[in-house]
Amino acid sequence: MNNADNTVWNGASRRIKMFEVGTRDGLQAEAAFVPTEDKIALVNALSRAGMAKIEVTAFVSPKAIPALSDAEIVLREIERVPGVVYSALVPNVRGAERAIDAQANEMNLVMSASESHNLANLRMTREQSLRGLAEVAALARQAGVAVNVSLSCSFGCPIEGDVAESDVFAWCGRFIDEIGATGITLCDTTGMAYPGQVARMVREFIARWPATDLTLHFHNTRGMGLANVLASIDAGARCFDASIGGIGGCPYAPGASGNVCSEDIAHALELMGYDTGIDMQALTAAARRLPALIGHDTPSQIAKAGRRLDLHPAPADFEATRARALAREH
Amino acid sequence: MNNADNTVWNGASRRIKMFEVGTRDGLQAEAAFVPTEDKIALVNALSRAGMAKIEVTAFVSPKAIPALSDAEIVLREIERVPGVVYSALVPNVRGAERAIDAQANEMNLVMSASESHNLANLRMTREQSLRGLAEVAALARQAGVAVNVSLSCSFGCPIEGDVAESDVFAWCGRFIDEIGATGITLCDTTGMAYPGQVARMVREFIARWPATDLTLHFHNTRGMGLANVLASIDAGARCFDASIGGIGGCPYAPGASGNVCSEDIAHALELMGYDTGIDMQALTAAARRLPALIGHDTPSQIAKAGRRLDLHPAPADFEATRARALAREH
Repeated sequence: MNNADNTVWNGASRRIKMFEVGTRDGLQAEAAFVPTEDKIALVNALSRAGMAKIEVTAFVSPKAIPALSDAEIVLREIERVPGVVYSALVPNVRGAERAIDAQANEMNLVMSASESHNLANLRMTREQSLRGLAEVAALARQAGVAVNVSLSCSFGCPIEGDVAESDVFAWCGRFIDEIGATGITLCDTTGMAYPGQVARMVREFIARWPATDLTLHFHNTRGMGLANVLASIDAGARCFDASIGGIGGCPYAPGASGNVCSEDIAHALELMGYDTGIDMQALTAAARRLPALIGHDTPSQIAKAGRRLDLHPAPADFEATRARALAREH
Repeated sequence: MNNADNTVWNGASRRIKMFEVGTRDGLQAEAAFVPTEDKIALVNALSRAGMAKIEVTAFVSPKAIPALSDAEIVLREIERVPGVVYSALVPNVRGAERAIDAQANEMNLVMSASESHNLANLRMTREQSLRGLAEVAALARQAGVAVNVSLSCSFGCPIEGDVAESDVFAWCGRFIDEIGATGITLCDTTGMAYPGQVARMVREFIARWPATDLTLHFHNTRGMGLANVLASIDAGARCFDASIGGIGGCPYAPGASGNVCSEDIAHALELMGYDTGIDMQALTAAARRLPALIGHDTPSQIAKAGRRLDLHPAPADFEATRARALAREH
C-alpha cells in the first residue's frame, strides 16, 4: 500500500534469523526430566519449522543439571537439516571435548558482564571465566567448531543494577581479540533491557565490529521483549535468540518470566513482512505440544490465542440476533 | 549520549497521555463484584498515579452487567483531581441521562467496525448502532459533555477476519461529521493489530482528521501490545488506553488476554524517556493490590517482576563464593 515505508514496522522481506534456545535454556530450568526421545522430536520439529540455529543442549555436569544429562544422545540422534546450525552450551574443556565428539556445529560459551552475576552464577570472577573460555575456544578452533560467546547481563544485572556500556563493549572486544569468537550474543538475562538502550548499544556494536555475528537474547520479564527485538532490527541486528513457549528463566531474579517466545516473535515479524523462514503452523503446533512435555502452561500467547487470522465462530444465537435486528428496520 | 537520536526509541520528554480503562473494561469482565468503596479507592489511586483520563464505569443495565451496578455512586464519590478527565461508557439515551446526572466529563460510545462483531456484541446492525450513538451524542452536546467514540475491531474482527481500512475510516468520518464526536478511539478488541498496520492506519487517521483526538486501544492477546503502542507513537499518536493489571478481555475471543497493561506500558515508556505523567511507584502499588480485589492473578509483568532497577539480593552463599574464587588467584 505504502511503498515508501522503509520504517522498522515494514519488514519488506528483510531476512531475520531466529535461533531457538528453548531446548537448552528452557528445558534446563524445568523440574521434570523431559524424556530423551521427546527432546529429539522437539529439536527435529524446530529444525523443520525453520529455525536457523538451535541450541540443542548443554555439555555440563549431569549432576549439576540432570535435565540435560542426555546431551550426547540428543545431539547425535537428531536429524541434521542442511543449513541449520546445531549449537551446544559448553562451560569448560571437558564439555568442549564432549561437544566436539558429538559433532556440535557451534559451541556457545557463557559469562556475565557483571562481576556479581558471574560469581553468583558461575562461581568465578569474570577474569577467571575469560581464561576458561579461552581454553575452550582454543580447543574448538583446533576442531573447526565455531565459537559464540553469550554475555549475560549485557543490559543490566539483577544484583548490581546498571552495567556500564563501556564494560560490556570491553568484554566483547576481548572475546573477539583474545579468544577469537566469531559471534557474540548480548543477553538480557533478567529482562532489564529497554528499547532506547538496545537501539543505542546495537548501533555501537555494529559500528565497532561489523564482521562479528551479533545476536540479541531478550527475556520478556517486563513485557518489553518484542519491542527490544524491533529496536534491535531498527539498529541493524538480524539474529535473535528465542524460546519455544517462552520457557526459561533465571534463578537469581525471582518472578522473572522466560525468554522471548519463539512463536510470538515469529508471528509478529511475519505479520510485519519480515522473512523469518519460520513455518508458523509447524511452530505453533510444536508450541502447543510443549505443556504436555514439561507439565505446565507456558507464557506463549500464540499457543493460547492462535494466530491473528485463526478466527472464532459467531455465537450460537448469531443468526437469530441478526434476524431480529434486521426485522427492526421495517 | 546520542543527542541526534530522534527515533521512536528515544522519548525525548515527549508527552504521552495514558487513559485507564481497567475500572470499566477490566472490572466489567470480572465474575466477582468488587465492593463499591474498593472501586472508589482504585479510581482515586489511579487519579493520583497520574492517569490523564479514567473510564470510571459504564451506565449500562445493572441486570446486564451487575459488576458495574454501582456506576452512579462510584462516579459521584471519587475524588475529582483537577486536569483528569472522568469518562464513562454510555450505550444509550438512558445511560446518557444517568452519566450527565452523575457529572461524567466525557461519554464514551461504542460500536464495532465489523457487522458480525456489532451484532454479536450489541445485537444491532452498525447502522442501528450509529443512530443510537447520534441520539446519545445530541444529549451529551446539550449537556456540554464531551463525546468520544470507541470503534471496536478497527484492526480486525475475530469472526470476520480482516476489516477493510476504508470501512474503518468511513465509520470514523461519520462519527465526526454526523454525530460530532471530538475524539475517536481505534480499538484492537481482540489483539489482531500488528505494528505495520497500526503505523499505516494512525498516519492516515491523523492526515485525514488532524483536529480529532485520536486514542489507540490495544490488547496484548498476541504479545504485540507495546510494539503497537510504539508504532502508533512513531506515526504521531499520543493517547493510549491501558488497563491496570492488564485485566479485561472479549467473550467472543476465547483465550485472549486482556488490555495492554497500564504499569507495563508506563514503565517501558518512562525508561525510553517519554513523559507519561505516571508515578510508577504509586501505579505499581495499586497494581499489586488488584489481585486481592478481583480474586486472581493478573497478566501484569511489572507487578510480578518489579521495575527494571528493583534489584534482587545476592545469593546467601555469595561472599563465601567470592572468597573462594579470589583465593584461587594466588
